[in-house]
Amino acid sequence: MGKPTMINILGSLLLFCSVSLANQEIDRVIYLPGQPENVNFAHYSGYVTVNKSAGRALFYWFIESPSNPESKPLVLWLNGGPGCSSIAYGAAEEIGPFRINPNGKTLYMNPYAWNKRTAVANLLFLESPAGVGFSYSNTSSDLYTAGDSKTAEDSYRFLQRWFNRFPQYKYRDFYIAGESYAGHYVPQLSQLIHRRNEGIANPVMKFKGFMVGNGVTDVYYDLIGTFEYWWTRGLISDSTYKRLNDSCPESSIRASACKKALDVAKSEIGNIDPYSIYTHPCNTTGEIWRNVRAHYVSDQMFLSEALPWLKRAYDPCTQRYSREYFNLPEVQKALHANKTNIPYPWDICSDIVEYNWVDSQRSMLPIYQELIEAGLRIWVYSGDTDAVVPVTATRYSLGALKLPAVTKWYPWYDKEKVGGWSEVYKGLTFVTIRGSGHEVPLHRLRQAFILFNHFLNNKPMPRKTLNVQMVQSS
Amino acid sequence: MGKPTMINILGSLLLFCSVSLANQEIDRVIYLPGQPENVNFAHYSGYVTVNKSAGRALFYWFIESPSNPESKPLVLWLNGGPGCSSIAYGAAEEIGPFRINPNGKTLYMNPYAWNKRTAVANLLFLESPAGVGFSYSNTSSDLYTAGDSKTAEDSYRFLQRWFNRFPQYKYRDFYIAGESYAGHYVPQLSQLIHRRNEGIANPVMKFKGFMVGNGVTDVYYDLIGTFEYWWTRGLISDSTYKRLNDSCPESSIRASACKKALDVAKSEIGNIDPYSIYTHPCNTTGEIWRNVRAHYVSDQMFLSEALPWLKRAYDPCTQRYSREYFNLPEVQKALHANKTNIPYPWDICSDIVEYNWVDSQRSMLPIYQELIEAGLRIWVYSGDTDAVVPVTATRYSLGALKLPAVTKWYPWYDKEKVGGWSEVYKGLTFVTIRGSGHEVPLHRLRQAFILFNHFLNNKPMPRKTLNVQMVQSS
Repeated sequence: MGKPTMINILGSLLLFCSVSLANQEIDRVIYLPGQPENVNFAHYSGYVTVNKSAGRALFYWFIESPSNPESKPLVLWLNGGPGCSSIAYGAAEEIGPFRINPNGKTLYMNPYAWNKRTAVANLLFLESPAGVGFSYSNTSSDLYTAGDSKTAEDSYRFLQRWFNRFPQYKYRDFYIAGESYAGHYVPQLSQLIHRRNEGIANPVMKFKGFMVGNGVTDVYYDLIGTFEYWWTRGLISDSTYKRLNDSCPESSIRASACKKALDVAKSEIGNIDPYSIYTHPCNTTGEIWRNVRAHYVSDQMFLSEALPWLKRAYDPCTQRYSREYFNLPEVQKALHANKTNIPYPWDICSDIVEYNWVDSQRSMLPIYQELIEAGLRIWVYSGDTDAVVPVTATRYSLGALKLPAVTKWYPWYDKEKVGGWSEVYKGLTFVTIRGSGHEVPLHRLRQAFILFNHFLNNKPMPRKTLNVQMVQSS
Repeated sequence: MGKPTMINILGSLLLFCSVSLANQEIDRVIYLPGQPENVNFAHYSGYVTVNKSAGRALFYWFIESPSNPESKPLVLWLNGGPGCSSIAYGAAEEIGPFRINPNGKTLYMNPYAWNKRTAVANLLFLESPAGVGFSYSNTSSDLYTAGDSKTAEDSYRFLQRWFNRFPQYKYRDFYIAGESYAGHYVPQLSQLIHRRNEGIANPVMKFKGFMVGNGVTDVYYDLIGTFEYWWTRGLISDSTYKRLNDSCPESSIRASACKKALDVAKSEIGNIDPYSIYTHPCNTTGEIWRNVRAHYVSDQMFLSEALPWLKRAYDPCTQRYSREYFNLPEVQKALHANKTNIPYPWDICSDIVEYNWVDSQRSMLPIYQELIEAGLRIWVYSGDTDAVVPVTATRYSLGALKLPAVTKWYPWYDKEKVGGWSEVYKGLTFVTIRGSGHEVPLHRLRQAFILFNHFLNNKPMPRKTLNVQMVQSS
């Protein structure tokens, strides 16, 4: 073969592009069973193989913005667990355009979907790691060896190949967002992308920053803050508060004294929804206690026996609808999902993946430091009525970064009502959402939408002076 | 005059009784303007002179139980401020049978009124001290010299004379309850009654115990707990939290550093309803900032300039209806109120009384200790979404009593839902009400009613095991 000519190069590129475009066209979702009439955006779903020899493939659902998707950024959304599906949570009950009706068969539109309205984004949902949702591995041991590192590596590999399938998104502004145990996934994947982009002038993944909500961040500070949250809400006794603080944060949460203290705490707290402490659980309260899983998986162990509800986020009702809908054969066909006949039903979370999690970094704070220094846009938010990864946990974790305040703590407003509070630190913006549980876009649709827009536009949350009447009468 | 004969004595007693009964008959409320149809209980209102030479008279509203009032205990209810009316709060928007419609002219029945249903009580509302509501003094300096001591003394005098007007309530089981700054009034009056009853075999006031809700208790512990509440709810910044703790609890809240820190806190908190932090204020949010008053009046000074909302309880809408209704001449006439043409309109709270408050005990804890030792029934409760006298404040204050736990912290249930939490200490029962603001019977009618019944029956709050389905699925 001689030197490549310009004609050769262009030809190859065209061939490559048409193959890519053909591949993405295969993934296009033509019609989703039970969908409402006003679907005015393109969406795609399918598999990206991340390890051919192991037969490991991750399932994604990609939803474009209805207007000018080519001018809008790309946002990858991740849910936590570990072991929980971003389709079940992010797409179906939080930020995605479709919500499932209680019949488990039909859909309706989310008025505050993050792909819609003004200035928003194209949304990529990923079920990660293999073993979660429709994502699978033909090497069954993969499901028993998942952990932080492999999740980040597989997600990175997924992104590389996904960008090849959707080349029109290469060099597009790219963000990552997620909640709960994705408090690990999001910074870890961000760090990987950032490091591998270093030295490249115009990287394919034009990574701009990330946002984490009610995220697991640092075992020590999160625990201190969680116990204080429980005590200050009156969920636990004085003596149990002391026992928890004496036995858990400094030692391993697996230590017997800590486990016992957590058992007492559990019985004191009783049958509330810890993800949203002032609302009532769905009728079938049994759901709350099912499919237990853990957020604090440091030291390769699990809290689930000790504290079965210290778990992933959910709405006990909507998750039921999801379980029904995404197991309908016609839905799976429409989504190009489960082509290999996975030997278990699709579920919102995988117990196997979670219970066998092999590595969990104790702290994300060094990653925050690295990526703040790199100048990435970093926002952290917290729904403030969540007792699982509570606002106090996040405050203590972020406090340990000792970032100077640029704009001091202030209430942010929506329609003259306090939506929550915010402080802009050097390199990081923190936002709380008042009265919201763990899944902020589920509990506070409109406020979450405002938050997302301000994150994308890198604008501090809206500050409002009191209206005239109030100032006059005070 | 010779020795009194038995006939003479009996005659005098009968005369005395008929005079008393005639006096109470004068106070009977025949018809209240705009009242609903189903009023099936007797009620009375009017004045009791507590100091004849000064012309000081306190206004009361007494509401009997509809069924067998003669077998039910008597409960005195007090609201705080200082300077606020128990008619405005307790009677009209909390525990009384009548609630005012938004038109300010008609009434409807409160389904969970504390005088109604099973096993409840006869309710006595008192506007105290003179200068509050319809209570007045012909010696205007009285309004400028109100304080804890005089309030207790006048209330005691009121009770003595009220029992003479309603002799059928003498020797009847008698309780006192109240909220907010009545966290002072209730224990102080209880102490007075207890002390003056000592050595009397069968006292007229058969005082059995008291209950305080979201009550101001101890300046130091209350402040520590209030600041922690603000921080853990994300209402204030880390730095302001530190400033408040450094400058307020140990020193006087009037100290300039503390005042400045409170100013910063105020601006950080913004326009929320501090009495119920997760609900929205009424449309006319201006109401919230009106008629400012203070709870922490120790050292004879006032917080109001520093923190105008750290004030008495209210519902900004219902208080507007009260202001309209109780100023209607026909209502005042029906209630035998304002017979002397008080030179200012009836209002929910008196600024004059509050701003000139002359004495406020720093701590109620010594009184608690004394009355616990005396074996009185003492219950303390807390609506847990109140930022003004928050649950943490009460926990720190009660914690300082170092009472041993008899029944450890547990969730109490109503209809299989967690109503709040409770711990039974030796000599004192503490109950929280989940998701309730400052005025518990306003925010959580049913839960407050359950609480009151359990207090009267001296039964711990209902403990429920999880239902079968939940246990099985966990």
